[in-house]
Amino acid sequence: MTGQRLLYHTSFSPACRKIRCMMDEMELEFKLMEEPVWQQREEFMKINPSGEIPVLVDGNGLVLCGSYAVTEYLEEGYRVHSLLGDSLQLRAEVRRLIHWVDYKLLREVTQPLLHEKFFRQLLKAGQPDTVVIRRAKRMMEQHLEVFEALLSKQEWLAGDRFTLADISAAAHISLYDYLSDVNWKRGAPLTKWYALIKSRPSFRRVLKDRVRGVKPPEHYENPDF
Amino acid sequence: MTGQRLLYHTSFSPACRKIRCMMDEMELEFKLMEEPVWQQREEFMKINPSGEIPVLVDGNGLVLCGSYAVTEYLEEGYRVHSLLGDSLQLRAEVRRLIHWVDYKLLREVTQPLLHEKFFRQLLKAGQPDTVVIRRAKRMMEQHLEVFEALLSKQEWLAGDRFTLADISAAAHISLYDYLSDVNWKRGAPLTKWYALIKSRPSFRRVLKDRVRGVKPPEHYENPDF
Repeated sequence: MTGQRLLYHTSFSPACRKIRCMMDEMELEFKLMEEPVWQQREEFMKINPSGEIPVLVDGNGLVLCGSYAVTEYLEEGYRVHSLLGDSLQLRAEVRRLIHWVDYKLLREVTQPLLHEKFFRQLLKAGQPDTVVIRRAKRMMEQHLEVFEALLSKQEWLAGDRFTLADISAAAHISLYDYLSDVNWKRGAPLTKWYALIKSRPSFRRVLKDRVRGVKPPEHYENPDF
Repeated sequence: MTGQRLLYHTSFSPACRKIRCMMDEMELEFKLMEEPVWQQREEFMKINPSGEIPVLVDGNGLVLCGSYAVTEYLEEGYRVHSLLGDSLQLRAEVRRLIHWVDYKLLREVTQPLLHEKFFRQLLKAGQPDTVVIRRAKRMMEQHLEVFEALLSKQEWLAGDRFTLADISAAAHISLYDYLSDVNWKRGAPLTKWYALIKSRPSFRRVLKDRVRGVKPPEHYENPDF
């Protein structure tokens, strides 16, 4: 018996954005279920006791908790044209970069930035701390320079082809862009790379999300910016 | 050309302990290189720009940065008897638990505990904060109860066979035990499970490590405790 594939997510989770793009690129259909993780809903905690997203409930009933389990499951269960690469070397580089963005970039930039500029308002937890925001934006600049160094010698982050490393990094950057925190006057190569990603149908769908109370800049969905 | 396999590690990193056990279980030979990551040595930053361990330099010259890339590389490149499991279902559960311990347990227990009880001394950064230690130990109790719930219905954390989920969790617990922070009077099933892991040659080798200035309890290496 095969039911509907279901992804528990929130719009502002970079890991969820990554999985949505990944499944779209793999032409896997799925339904989205918005999960307010901060509420720790009892019903959701039964599905994933860690209370974290993304959680994928596949059509076969299998439950995948966390982006590590989801990513590798999709790769092992549905791989056609692999988004992780075909050689051990490329896969090593893709996974190095995924770990980089989903842990280092997350901790140093995404989490503090989202906390101050978005979750404080959502959770009515006081005014944004401008010191934390400034520090996160300085760190963001350092990370973007790392990506630019990679993109100055090759078309995509992990090499000459589009991989899950690009999706993962773009998922974070799209959130900074939603919050108007990226200076795109920096020009190529990062701007060119992000324009290419924004023009992919998988990514365009993610960019359609809107969060109440926060308006993205004019150029947010536009691949020519 | 095949050179020596080299693992950059520190004794007090649970992710490094995991990879050491994993390679030992897979009967892969390797040399250990102690890397004082807090020094951010220029030479090491060239190998892994994120400055993090574990880093594996395989005999073929391939460099694997971070435990995600290392784990999946070992699985894909050297898999004989898989430590991640053979079915998609078991692999999903193993990866769910690895993510749990290497991120949730790490953040809520291992990092604060090691910071207060070990790194403060190492880096001459003041006295341990007893409030932080007490909170980390309360959280530890909650995590151990999660493991106990799993072990009350099956022999190993992910099911009926020993997997990398057991190695991953035991790697963290071995550090708490080194710091004398686990109450083993709790008895079965956690104590029985940990005794079985301690009796494995792969794990016994890890337990031989000593860190200057911190002495483990008498029972630390003893499988009958």
